[in-house]
Amino acid sequence: MAITFYDLCGKDGARFSPYGWRTRMALAHKGLDYTLELVKFTEKEKLAFTGQKLVPVIQYGETVVNDSFAIACFLEDAFPDKPSLFSGEAGRGMAKTINGFVDRMVQPLIAPLIVADVLDCVDESCKEYFRSSREQRFGMTLQEFQSKRDEKVAAFRTALEPIRMVVKDQRFIGGSAPTYADYILFDSMQWARLTSTFQLVEGDDPIHAWFERVLDSNGGIAREEPIAATAA
Amino acid sequence: MAITFYDLCGKDGARFSPYGWRTRMALAHKGLDYTLELVKFTEKEKLAFTGQKLVPVIQYGETVVNDSFAIACFLEDAFPDKPSLFSGEAGRGMAKTINGFVDRMVQPLIAPLIVADVLDCVDESCKEYFRSSREQRFGMTLQEFQSKRDEKVAAFRTALEPIRMVVKDQRFIGGSAPTYADYILFDSMQWARLTSTFQLVEGDDPIHAWFERVLDSNGGIAREEPIAATAA
Repeated sequence: MAITFYDLCGKDGARFSPYGWRTRMALAHKGLDYTLELVKFTEKEKLAFTGQKLVPVIQYGETVVNDSFAIACFLEDAFPDKPSLFSGEAGRGMAKTINGFVDRMVQPLIAPLIVADVLDCVDESCKEYFRSSREQRFGMTLQEFQSKRDEKVAAFRTALEPIRMVVKDQRFIGGSAPTYADYILFDSMQWARLTSTFQLVEGDDPIHAWFERVLDSNGGIAREEPIAATAA
Repeated sequence: MAITFYDLCGKDGARFSPYGWRTRMALAHKGLDYTLELVKFTEKEKLAFTGQKLVPVIQYGETVVNDSFAIACFLEDAFPDKPSLFSGEAGRGMAKTINGFVDRMVQPLIAPLIVADVLDCVDESCKEYFRSSREQRFGMTLQEFQSKRDEKVAAFRTALEPIRMVVKDQRFIGGSAPTYADYILFDSMQWARLTSTFQLVEGDDPIHAWFERVLDSNGGIAREEPIAATAA
């Protein structure tokens, strides 16, 4: 039985969705092959069979799963003999806590640093949709929302402290090897790395060294992904 | 070989330190007996042999460990056959991340809700030390710092969201039974429960139901602890 993975794509097939990356790293961690289906922002009709409009989506036989954390749980349960994403029941609850922490308290601090740059990586056919939907959400133009990012980045760096305290003393949150908890923040930062030239953390930040280590994990698939960002 | 546990105490032997509770729940989780040594705020000379001034401290033979997370790691490693606090190497890193999240982003939002009430639970001999040291830290009187708590509590409740998302769907962060990740937030809220009549969360908040479940865990030791709070 084959896995089909529906992932968001931008201009020229660029794949930068942070949630798509969580699924992509989870699939790589478990060493699973899959068929890739790319979905542009304005091609959500491709997801009609899922009963909702968001990627990533995994289809495995009759089973359809959306929401990146639910997908990780599905992969963990469906492929228990492959390397674990969570380290048991207790680890799954902790990973879900960290998932909520990054989604609620960290990733919202990245958006105002890069969102106008992300627009440049969106396919021409989707730009108007992307711009107007985001400008409505933020209540201002994307350029305004992204202004003063040299000041705003401080709040993002401060919010990383709970993870910095861990990875300054060990290679990964997962210890000697990354687990799903690592991929959560990594993928939010990978979103920025692929779409923007803005520097999220300083070179001497332990988060930077940890990020480089995750880039090298899983055969370096995250490092090999083409950078979509256009020169600033 | 016996364990000696040095814990903070207030008036009439009241034990409300959130960090002391983390060690106490970790010891109970592992089913370990210990000799208790109580240390008042102004009795830090009792800790001179540790080379620092903070409780909790664990002494086990020649080994002396301070810092509640380091103590939990020590107990996990020294008693590997007892119930696990972390669920392996990956779980330990995740628990440390959650420890940092609660210490940096949640517990600082509890202090302004209860700190003047905590003063009433401090031994008479330590009140002046407690008041002046905290007023210096906060830059205002404890009553001022604790004012408007009906408004301030909203920020605390919002900060719980990453944990609320987990325990609304399962009994504990640890799954069917609590692990160290549960004790971290629990013990910060136990600090408030023992020292103040202020209500941290609404009765219909999933965090409330989870807190009650942790109170019943480990033989109910947290529920049985005498409430030190004086009537408001």
